[in-house]
Amino acid sequence: MAALARSVLVTGSNRGIGLELVRQLAASPRPPQHIFATCRDPKGPRGKALQELAAQHSSIKLVQLDTVNLPSIQGAMQAVGYHLKDQGLNLLINNAGISSHTTLHSLDSQEMLDVFATNVVGPLQVVKEFLPLLEQAAKGAGKEGLSCSRAAVINISSKLGSIGLCLRVPEAPMYPVLSFRCSRAALNMLSKCQSLAYKEHGILCVALHPGWVQTDMGSSFGHGHMPPVTVDDSVQGMLKVLSSLSEKETGAFLDWEGKVRPW
Amino acid sequence: MAALARSVLVTGSNRGIGLELVRQLAASPRPPQHIFATCRDPKGPRGKALQELAAQHSSIKLVQLDTVNLPSIQGAMQAVGYHLKDQGLNLLINNAGISSHTTLHSLDSQEMLDVFATNVVGPLQVVKEFLPLLEQAAKGAGKEGLSCSRAAVINISSKLGSIGLCLRVPEAPMYPVLSFRCSRAALNMLSKCQSLAYKEHGILCVALHPGWVQTDMGSSFGHGHMPPVTVDDSVQGMLKVLSSLSEKETGAFLDWEGKVRPW
Repeated sequence: MAALARSVLVTGSNRGIGLELVRQLAASPRPPQHIFATCRDPKGPRGKALQELAAQHSSIKLVQLDTVNLPSIQGAMQAVGYHLKDQGLNLLINNAGISSHTTLHSLDSQEMLDVFATNVVGPLQVVKEFLPLLEQAAKGAGKEGLSCSRAAVINISSKLGSIGLCLRVPEAPMYPVLSFRCSRAALNMLSKCQSLAYKEHGILCVALHPGWVQTDMGSSFGHGHMPPVTVDDSVQGMLKVLSSLSEKETGAFLDWEGKVRPW
Repeated sequence: MAALARSVLVTGSNRGIGLELVRQLAASPRPPQHIFATCRDPKGPRGKALQELAAQHSSIKLVQLDTVNLPSIQGAMQAVGYHLKDQGLNLLINNAGISSHTTLHSLDSQEMLDVFATNVVGPLQVVKEFLPLLEQAAKGAGKEGLSCSRAAVINISSKLGSIGLCLRVPEAPMYPVLSFRCSRAALNMLSKCQSLAYKEHGILCVALHPGWVQTDMGSSFGHGHMPPVTVDDSVQGMLKVLSSLSEKETGAFLDWEGKVRPW
């Protein structure tokens, strides 16, 4: 099996799904040459698991990247560009995101705006700043069509952001995680716009639902119910989906098993 | 024909679609008894057209309401409650909103958050604060089922917020009005959540696309192209749609001609 991509960047990679993505990418039979594992404070105590992983795999480079801080994104882009030389970045996974406990009846407007800042403005700014590296990869890959091995943006979204489904959360009235739902619907719109704008640049864009996963965030949605999907299974599934993506799927909203989800 | 509702509140009513909604409601053969025409500064120079209209119709009450200012919303709710006595508010039209010229490539994160604050957090806060008046109307109307004459929230959305359509703007690359699109997708999610949460309280909730209308906002989308729909036609169409709404439509995304639009 060919490598998924020569170079991959994952935001929010110090825990949960981001950490597992880095772990499975690094441990794969044909790992990417460069895995840029980014988070707000990779050298601090919350980056410990990531530091241990990086010590085992020379492919993993830890990069400071705070997705709501433009100078930090620009600094990360410089550092990543330096490592990649002229080959560009193949695969950018916008994984960093936050949840919230806002409901229709318990609303904190500043909290809601913080959720939008991290879950929508952040992914938009990250793609905007890294676009030159993605375009470089798309041009230099010697490939036609769209794929993660050429150039791609994967926005980790959520089925909770599906307006069509508008899932109930077990035993929770008044539509909790409302800010999160609204931010994921907005991220899905962003993802669709990116897919249409960047298709002609050779860049694939997809919104991906990781499943209801046993992470801190996933557990916070359950009101005591255990999420059904392990982090391991979710990431295995998502990496399989990523390896199969082509121009047919650009602009789609898919889940970790490859199924199309309604907007 | 029966009155659309005994009492109606319209946000952002000093110009464009909001002003025309107030005008046509007041001039209808069976006008609402109370039309609360709200905006940020109804007594200032930008409220002049509204002041002139209110001078001609005793049904129109001007109320200060800034949808991004919680004390202002709470003050407006008190004033409206005082007028209505114990009968509650039948119809709340969340019309206030702002546009933006953000594209995928020209991004101002603060501007994007301002758009979210006005177009998503604002409507959410307004409904939350006015909910007791809407519930009062729903209980007191002596009616079954859902309708605008009983109790309803209408969120003025936009076809530009449809992820499924993801409309191109004429001669404009890079998906302009990106913040607006994302905010409208988020508003559609909010609208759907409201519809499910408030159905059992007897409150109908719908997201409504007014058409591409000849207002300042509509014209700003066109890059020199004239919007096809007059303000008069748009509002006539929307009022006809509102008068026909029932429990079948709650949670839907409709346009000014009553057609269902994709999320």
